[in-house]
Amino acid sequence: MAKRLFLDDDRLFPAEASVRAVARELYAGVRDLPIVSPHGHCDPRWFAWNEAFPNATDLLLAPDHYLYRMLYSQGVAMETLRVPDRSGEAEGDPREAWRTFAAHFHLFRGTPSALWLNHVFAEVFGLDVVLEASTADRYYDAIGQALATDAFRPRALFDRFNIEVLATTESPVDTLEHHAAIRASGWPGRVITAYRPDPVIDPEHEAFPDALARFGELSGQDVTTWGGYLEAHRMRRRAFIEAGATSTDHGHPTAATADLSRVEAERLFATVVGGRATPAEAEVFRAQMLTEMAAMSLDDGLVMQIHPGSFRNHNRAVFERFGRDKGSDIPTRTDYVRALKPLLDRFGNERALSLIVFTLDETSYSRELAPLAGHYPALRLGPSWWFHDSPEGMRRFREETTETAGFYNTVGFNDDTRALLSIPARHDVARRVDCGFLARLVAEHRLALDEAHEMSHELACGLARRAYKLDQPGTRHAAC
Amino acid sequence: MAKRLFLDDDRLFPAEASVRAVARELYAGVRDLPIVSPHGHCDPRWFAWNEAFPNATDLLLAPDHYLYRMLYSQGVAMETLRVPDRSGEAEGDPREAWRTFAAHFHLFRGTPSALWLNHVFAEVFGLDVVLEASTADRYYDAIGQALATDAFRPRALFDRFNIEVLATTESPVDTLEHHAAIRASGWPGRVITAYRPDPVIDPEHEAFPDALARFGELSGQDVTTWGGYLEAHRMRRRAFIEAGATSTDHGHPTAATADLSRVEAERLFATVVGGRATPAEAEVFRAQMLTEMAAMSLDDGLVMQIHPGSFRNHNRAVFERFGRDKGSDIPTRTDYVRALKPLLDRFGNERALSLIVFTLDETSYSRELAPLAGHYPALRLGPSWWFHDSPEGMRRFREETTETAGFYNTVGFNDDTRALLSIPARHDVARRVDCGFLARLVAEHRLALDEAHEMSHELACGLARRAYKLDQPGTRHAAC
Amino acid sequence: MAKRLFLDDDRLFPAEASVRAVARELYAGVRDLPIVSPHGHCDPRWFAWNEAFPNATDLLLAPDHYLYRMLYSQGVAMETLRVPDRSGEAEGDPREAWRTFAAHFHLFRGTPSALWLNHVFAEVFGLDVVLEASTADRYYDAIGQALATDAFRPRALFDRFNIEVLATTESPVDTLEHHAAIRASGWPGRVITAYRPDPVIDPEHEAFPDALARFGELSGQDVTTWGGYLEAHRMRRRAFIEAGATSTDHGHPTAATADLSRVEAERLFATVVGGRATPAEAEVFRAQMLTEMAAMSLDDGLVMQIHPGSFRNHNRAVFERFGRDKGSDIPTRTDYVRALKPLLDRFGNERALSLIVFTLDETSYSRELAPLAGHYPALRLGPSWWFHDSPEGMRRFREETTETAGFYNTVGFNDDTRALLSIPARHDVARRVDCGFLARLVAEHRLALDEAHEMSHELACGLARRAYKLDQPGTRHAAC
Repeated sequence: MAKRLFLDDDRLFPAEASVRAVARELYAGVRDLPIVSPHGHCDPRWFAWNEAFPNATDLLLAPDHYLYRMLYSQGVAMETLRVPDRSGEAEGDPREAWRTFAAHFHLFRGTPSALWLNHVFAEVFGLDVVLEASTADRYYDAIGQALATDAFRPRALFDRFNIEVLATTESPVDTLEHHAAIRASGWPGRVITAYRPDPVIDPEHEAFPDALARFGELSGQDVTTWGGYLEAHRMRRRAFIEAGATSTDHGHPTAATADLSRVEAERLFATVVGGRATPAEAEVFRAQMLTEMAAMSLDDGLVMQIHPGSFRNHNRAVFERFGRDKGSDIPTRTDYVRALKPLLDRFGNERALSLIVFTLDETSYSRELAPLAGHYPALRLGPSWWFHDSPEGMRRFREETTETAGFYNTVGFNDDTRALLSIPARHDVARRVDCGFLARLVAEHRLALDEAHEMSHELACGLARRAYKLDQPGTRHAAC
Repeated sequence: MAKRLFLDDDRLFPAEASVRAVARELYAGVRDLPIVSPHGHCDPRWFAWNEAFPNATDLLLAPDHYLYRMLYSQGVAMETLRVPDRSGEAEGDPREAWRTFAAHFHLFRGTPSALWLNHVFAEVFGLDVVLEASTADRYYDAIGQALATDAFRPRALFDRFNIEVLATTESPVDTLEHHAAIRASGWPGRVITAYRPDPVIDPEHEAFPDALARFGELSGQDVTTWGGYLEAHRMRRRAFIEAGATSTDHGHPTAATADLSRVEAERLFATVVGGRATPAEAEVFRAQMLTEMAAMSLDDGLVMQIHPGSFRNHNRAVFERFGRDKGSDIPTRTDYVRALKPLLDRFGNERALSLIVFTLDETSYSRELAPLAGHYPALRLGPSWWFHDSPEGMRRFREETTETAGFYNTVGFNDDTRALLSIPARHDVARRVDCGFLARLVAEHRLALDEAHEMSHELACGLARRAYKLDQPGTRHAAC
Repeated sequence: MAKRLFLDDDRLFPAEASVRAVARELYAGVRDLPIVSPHGHCDPRWFAWNEAFPNATDLLLAPDHYLYRMLYSQGVAMETLRVPDRSGEAEGDPREAWRTFAAHFHLFRGTPSALWLNHVFAEVFGLDVVLEASTADRYYDAIGQALATDAFRPRALFDRFNIEVLATTESPVDTLEHHAAIRASGWPGRVITAYRPDPVIDPEHEAFPDALARFGELSGQDVTTWGGYLEAHRMRRRAFIEAGATSTDHGHPTAATADLSRVEAERLFATVVGGRATPAEAEVFRAQMLTEMAAMSLDDGLVMQIHPGSFRNHNRAVFERFGRDKGSDIPTRTDYVRALKPLLDRFGNERALSLIVFTLDETSYSRELAPLAGHYPALRLGPSWWFHDSPEGMRRFREETTETAGFYNTVGFNDDTRALLSIPARHDVARRVDCGFLARLVAEHRLALDEAHEMSHELACGLARRAYKLDQPGTRHAAC
């Protein structure tokens, strides 16, 4: 007989009774607050056309690199999991892939993926047995049937999940047609875009030459000149703002920034456009562009996010066959103190700038990022990210940053996901872990209970709304 | 109605009942032990002239970079907080500054500053409501009235705080007149100096040329020659020892040490004195001077402290307007294994040398510093420092160093502060956190209760007394 | 009166009652499982000749660098502890050395050495008082008497400890005569070797030239040519496999790997054999050899272990007098992401390869090693090692790796010791700490109880058996 799937009401709270009691009380005050999702990778197409999702495998497994990387690490071929290759083609039978996944579900013990998935299975689909080989078909069928109903179409899920706002991420060469369609549809869900210019900023991005050409077409600017290129950014940023964007996002190998003279920048840009940039020049160009983006943010008000420190596509064979974002991005040691200085020298003291910095290198929390965010008016510290978006990772984030940066120099939670169905699960984990952290402070008499209540609301949505400038007239949300 | 300010007797102890019970018992044995403060930055002038402190703002806020950096990070201008600029001038009205501070006091939730300040408010001033906008004036007036009384003059506070010994920090070109005045006054409080030669050792220090000239005058040596320069150090160290010093202190960007030949050192010194040192040469010179200082310590017995790893004055605009030590020093990644080797090759096996090393890079605790301190006879490991002088920081320090270095290669607590009124609060936090750590070891049967009692006394004052050679005849202290 | 020595049944379990109850239950299921020791440094001679051990000092103190490094750090001369010098000679009286050790035993408070030793004293020798100056002779005599009995000979201890398999570590120029003698003896204890080729791979190893010459003699190959040298490795690996080896082990200063062309490799080897390799060339040669070893592992099936990141023989004076492995090896910051890429580009996707990577730099757990091990089929993550083989170190290992790599990309516990008597103590600590970690997950509803039981068995021996290919026919062990 299959084992029962059960989400305990006290999950993720510290075990000690007095701490748990406070955590429960705090969590009761925030569990039903709306979801503010200022950074993520959902597909706007879903909400534009509101079509039904296909099946369990192609919805939950094949697009989720957290899942297939773990199976791959234990010898399961990615082809058998319907992970699409470079051409976008996926092999094999979805039901067979799901069976393989179910037979390996024990690999996720102790991981956040298990927490998220069990939440999705139990709360979103109402499943009541544990996923394992013997229940694979039962799952596959139940999920498939649910997905065929109107209640599981994207907009219905968005409403059911109580999402106040959801930001997606698009390239400057995206035409934003799906966002336009959402607005034109009359559906009131707030789905906004964010400006992610990596493909037209990173000379080492495999799509750079094509993206640059398209960038020129879309903007009508001569993007082979430095002036035209910058103007094209300004124009596309304006178009993104019109599509609701409140932020930009920059995924760079390092946090390096630069502050070149106009002449130096022009000369470097010419080299980049000419396709002759060395790796070192590419690095300086990316660095300079962060500072240029900060300058534009001061003008147009977009919040700026930097996500540095990932060695992309580390597995050569996987990259060659399957392309990017396939679970082989690996964090690297990341410096911020020297890297950010050129940008901070120019804009660090600007109160009107909001620069949110993330890290995959936890050593920087207490050593660099909390001290920087606890001093510079322009800087805020993004939440624990990616491999650290997990109970232990979030706990370490609070333990290692709060004492120096406080709570108010942080920006709440980011789910950062392309897995729509897991969004409530992810916010729930974050709220539970933050309440557990606050409860410990209360139990140790380091924070008063009324202060902890206030902070739990701030961490659940207040900080994110303000840091990302989402707290605008017309926003539909409960007081938080 | 204002909220009640209340310091719980169990604050900072782990919540679990059996651990808390042991922590309470251990703490009861050390809470009233005298304060040994072997490293800090109080102004000896206070004790020499024993004048009343001015007002809440100029005593508690304007000199405390922990406080104004946090307000600055949230958009409050430093000018409005009476932070003095380069000329030493402070703007604005102290009461208004205090009101601004009070209105932002929630920013410190979860930080050690809140713990320290609430201790000062409740224990030193007897305040019984929480600081917030509505109580700002009540605080300002109450503190002002108290400061006008004799009971709040520096010497009275020193006595009330049960301070056994307090070390200040002076430059070699300080005339030590305040320390002389203290001794001449007949007041028995033990306030000693420490030799901090950075301004005459660091060629990149903005005061270096002037300090060097003054160094020559004070010592009567020709400090433009290597021999005269070293002799000047020996003479000033002797003068400091006469003023009670038992230690030197070295705040360097890195932990680099060097062991040049006499000829190389002379050549390098000529470059430095000539004002022609490159950054790389300046680094080697500082490195060489650490080794020279160690050699002198072997002769004159001064304990040597190295505080490396801070990128000083990171915020250019703040530095230009307000000068150094204004809250924009940021830690950097710091290597010890290779950096200390030249010095350790020469003196690491000397049992008579006591070299205390600190870090702002917590990654070095378990990886480098505990292994080094757990092997070299000359090395000791300084306590968690600066941004890590906090409950979580102290806990991590013990968790990451004890298993490799034990307790006996550490040196107790340093308050490292210029905030006289917070000294009891800081030692109290340290004692509570250490007792909590020991209590966990007891509860997990990793340490016997009688051993934990012994260790709590050692951590509270025994280790500091011995490591800093403060346990001399004539010292007035209870058995510890 | 001497204090009672007592091992609490609940030692090392978290104090909170509900967590402790689960930990107890989990531990009850694994405490009596056989010991699988796939990596260590016991002397095979012991089991070959089964002679009695000499005395407490020469068995427990003089060979254990964890112990004498701590005493040395506090000013005790290594000569007085019977630590042998380079010639192998040890000075002084063993009883006097033991007394010195006993008088300093308080230095180990809070360290794993205290846990291990007290386990050995109480469980192996049945001692019931605490070791201190007053009990030194009682200990020395009791241990000496026990060691003279047959019950304390190596094979008897091996059986008593319920060791299923014990791997030792030998150089390629070892003749494996002791392992042959063990097998020839008819004693059924499974003591196997492991191939540790550092002395013939590291051009900077002080024994390199002699070892290389001997390597040629033993293999009958011309090891001055690249082809002959590689063939000699293949032959010696085969001989090791015949002596039971299932693994190789590589202790390198860094994790650097390389993938040179045949021509480049030949040229580099010629430089190395000619004794002309610069430090940079020596590094590339070691790096290349890791990739060559991986290639051979794919052929002959040996599991490959990399132990990087130790700065060997940091204390020059100690090295000159006492030689290597004398407690002055210090960890250094270690990169894996770039370092392992050449090897992983070639072999990372091979499911048939098992490459186990260790670290002394805990920052790499969550940042680099868990992400790498959670993706590459060939990679597994070795347990917390050396300075981190301790309760806090093991806890951090699980907290920082499980969420990204899961449990199944780890390989169980390594005692990595030359201290035979401490082997049960070390495995007991590991089992207790792992059960405590699992119990917390259960109490926080992050893992079901039945899953925790399964994982506790896997962590105790299942993972080690499979990762090291020790689960072969003929193995005598209980179901695990």
